[in-house]
Amino acid sequence: MLAARYKEMLNQKSVIRDMFYFACDRVVAHGAENVFDYSIGNPSVPVPVAYNKKIAELLEGPDFITVHGYSPNLGILSVREKISSYLNKTYDMAYKADHIFMTAGAASAICHALRCVVEEGEEVIVFAPYFPEYRPYIELNGGVMRVVEPDTTAFQIDFDKLERALNEKTAAVMVNSPSNPSGAVFSEETLKKLAALLTEKQKQYGHEIFIISDEPYREIVFNGQTVPYVSKYYDNTLSCYSFSKSLSVPGDRIGYLAANPDCLDAEMIAPMCGQISRGLGHNCPTAFIQLAVGELIGTTADLSVYETNMNLLYDAFTDMGIACIRPNGTFYLFPKAPEPDAKAFCDKAKYANLIFVPGDSFGCPGYFRVSFCRDTETVKRSIPVLRDFMRKTYGI
Amino acid sequence: MLAARYKEMLNQKSVIRDMFYFACDRVVAHGAENVFDYSIGNPSVPVPVAYNKKIAELLEGPDFITVHGYSPNLGILSVREKISSYLNKTYDMAYKADHIFMTAGAASAICHALRCVVEEGEEVIVFAPYFPEYRPYIELNGGVMRVVEPDTTAFQIDFDKLERALNEKTAAVMVNSPSNPSGAVFSEETLKKLAALLTEKQKQYGHEIFIISDEPYREIVFNGQTVPYVSKYYDNTLSCYSFSKSLSVPGDRIGYLAANPDCLDAEMIAPMCGQISRGLGHNCPTAFIQLAVGELIGTTADLSVYETNMNLLYDAFTDMGIACIRPNGTFYLFPKAPEPDAKAFCDKAKYANLIFVPGDSFGCPGYFRVSFCRDTETVKRSIPVLRDFMRKTYGI
Repeated sequence: MLAARYKEMLNQKSVIRDMFYFACDRVVAHGAENVFDYSIGNPSVPVPVAYNKKIAELLEGPDFITVHGYSPNLGILSVREKISSYLNKTYDMAYKADHIFMTAGAASAICHALRCVVEEGEEVIVFAPYFPEYRPYIELNGGVMRVVEPDTTAFQIDFDKLERALNEKTAAVMVNSPSNPSGAVFSEETLKKLAALLTEKQKQYGHEIFIISDEPYREIVFNGQTVPYVSKYYDNTLSCYSFSKSLSVPGDRIGYLAANPDCLDAEMIAPMCGQISRGLGHNCPTAFIQLAVGELIGTTADLSVYETNMNLLYDAFTDMGIACIRPNGTFYLFPKAPEPDAKAFCDKAKYANLIFVPGDSFGCPGYFRVSFCRDTETVKRSIPVLRDFMRKTYGI
Repeated sequence: MLAARYKEMLNQKSVIRDMFYFACDRVVAHGAENVFDYSIGNPSVPVPVAYNKKIAELLEGPDFITVHGYSPNLGILSVREKISSYLNKTYDMAYKADHIFMTAGAASAICHALRCVVEEGEEVIVFAPYFPEYRPYIELNGGVMRVVEPDTTAFQIDFDKLERALNEKTAAVMVNSPSNPSGAVFSEETLKKLAALLTEKQKQYGHEIFIISDEPYREIVFNGQTVPYVSKYYDNTLSCYSFSKSLSVPGDRIGYLAANPDCLDAEMIAPMCGQISRGLGHNCPTAFIQLAVGELIGTTADLSVYETNMNLLYDAFTDMGIACIRPNGTFYLFPKAPEPDAKAFCDKAKYANLIFVPGDSFGCPGYFRVSFCRDTETVKRSIPVLRDFMRKTYGI
């Protein structure tokens, strides 16, 4: 028989995908130039030329076994070395290659991290608003997801609510800074307070609590700011990184898990991930893609368009009186809907060819996500349409 | 705390990897030309030029979002269509694209298949000798592995033993033809008998029993034979394919799962795999690699070297009086060791720079695996060394 659990999941719909498919239908009916699809987070800036060139070079080389042969279980050593050096230089850490495990993007890194530190039935804390895929990641890997309600004043952490959520069954806390969907970056103050609280609770409960830090947007930051590196503030941190956004290559499936060198049994994490991988069945990410990103560590696509788009849309929304925290990073805005029901708002907006995603599926009703990884000309053309829609529908 | 299950697994050793690492050490000490590493199954024939060329073309193209953007959950539709057409033409089947789910190699396809049809605690039957990774695949996805002892006369199926292993908890049977490690191909007769028995047992138990067919060696067959296509003989079959061996690209991680169009809820299998994938965290295989294999369906690397090597080694072993079934496919020989303990035999051989893997970890003690994916010159040079070792050690 088919497994009941996954059969039931077929009835679950991804609101993001639904909105995206709606946008695709609107494009057919109304023309691509008239539909403003702010639903899905597919990076929109070109892949660095050097990346494609490096892959082409590798494929042309004579050593097909290095290029197309099996990767070692934990990833290619030279690449893991380059990643650890880069992290040490950039964030003043002390990683060795041994702490790095190559993965097929952040999703894979998070699933490995969860299996590594969460036993069946233990709890994983998630701060709303959160990336909706956290729920299947956690639940399908044996954990129980516990949501901490949002701090909608600044999209930092509501520590009273966090304290009430923490308990003896807490095995891990998911952090996502810069955040999808809010665009907020956790401040140093937030991270220090979080670290102090978790350290206290570890003592109280007599066991470790890990931070699983989901960091695909680490390099997409605005106003020349830097993102405090989560692992710097708390030893028991597993950092989950993806090159999807920094290199604009989400389809290539490449990232890594970096275990803080001072975390519990730090030298065991990557080998344990190697064992976990046998059950997840994907083994390593594509070997030649590992080699290519290894050569490009620290390089990014030209990410400046995201800041340009953010400013245009932030100004437009706030000018209309729509409440919105100014994002410090990512390619998302997370404004408050002009009516209490963000789903109703998004359903109206979509017929004006403005495709947003309601915050409900991010655990934050009343807000909506604007994924502005689009070309700036499209963003500019959308603003009069947005103003027109808001005026006609909400009189603003 | 770290998950006990995976921590314990750190003590498990892969005998194949151990032998491979031993060979690497011997290469340093004795020179590459003097070490005959028959341990690991890394394809040794060059990747088709057309494959590398296709990738280079894709990367050079202007549409970076098609090439590097997210793949749809179930894989790229045009690729799934090409695969279904190819399978229909080659095996006279009636697949639609809907029955195909793109995966990161056969490992990924098998893990998805297991989660699809095996509930926690249900049993999965495996025929010895079996690929050792079947155990973590099954056990880490909630199943219980039940081994059917080998038919060492022909490496087909011992049906008496199979009947004793089948029970109400049996959810699936793993088939691997051509087989790693025996090189045997299940005959039409074997498959018909298997199908009849499983059909009878399905009725008796009142639930489906799926065949999960692991087929990475489908195209590596000898003497111009064809491999009976398992799914043709039994409707409830999920075929798990990898391009690793046919295109010589194991590091690229690309394959698929094909659900028989007449299996239970056939149209649900691929969407369920899409849900399962969210928990395994790897999502799709690399998008541009999907596109590249899509263009090359039916093409293989020049696989003829494997037959040449097989004949050389088969003749050498049998000439020495070493019992060995002539493989019909793969790049493995599975001879009977010249002493009862195959581990002891392999430990002696390795100091003569002949690196084999004992059959114990394949569930078949007393035999050893010879992985002959090496260049033919090396194979030729190994034969006098093999004869010398056998004469000195066993007087044969």
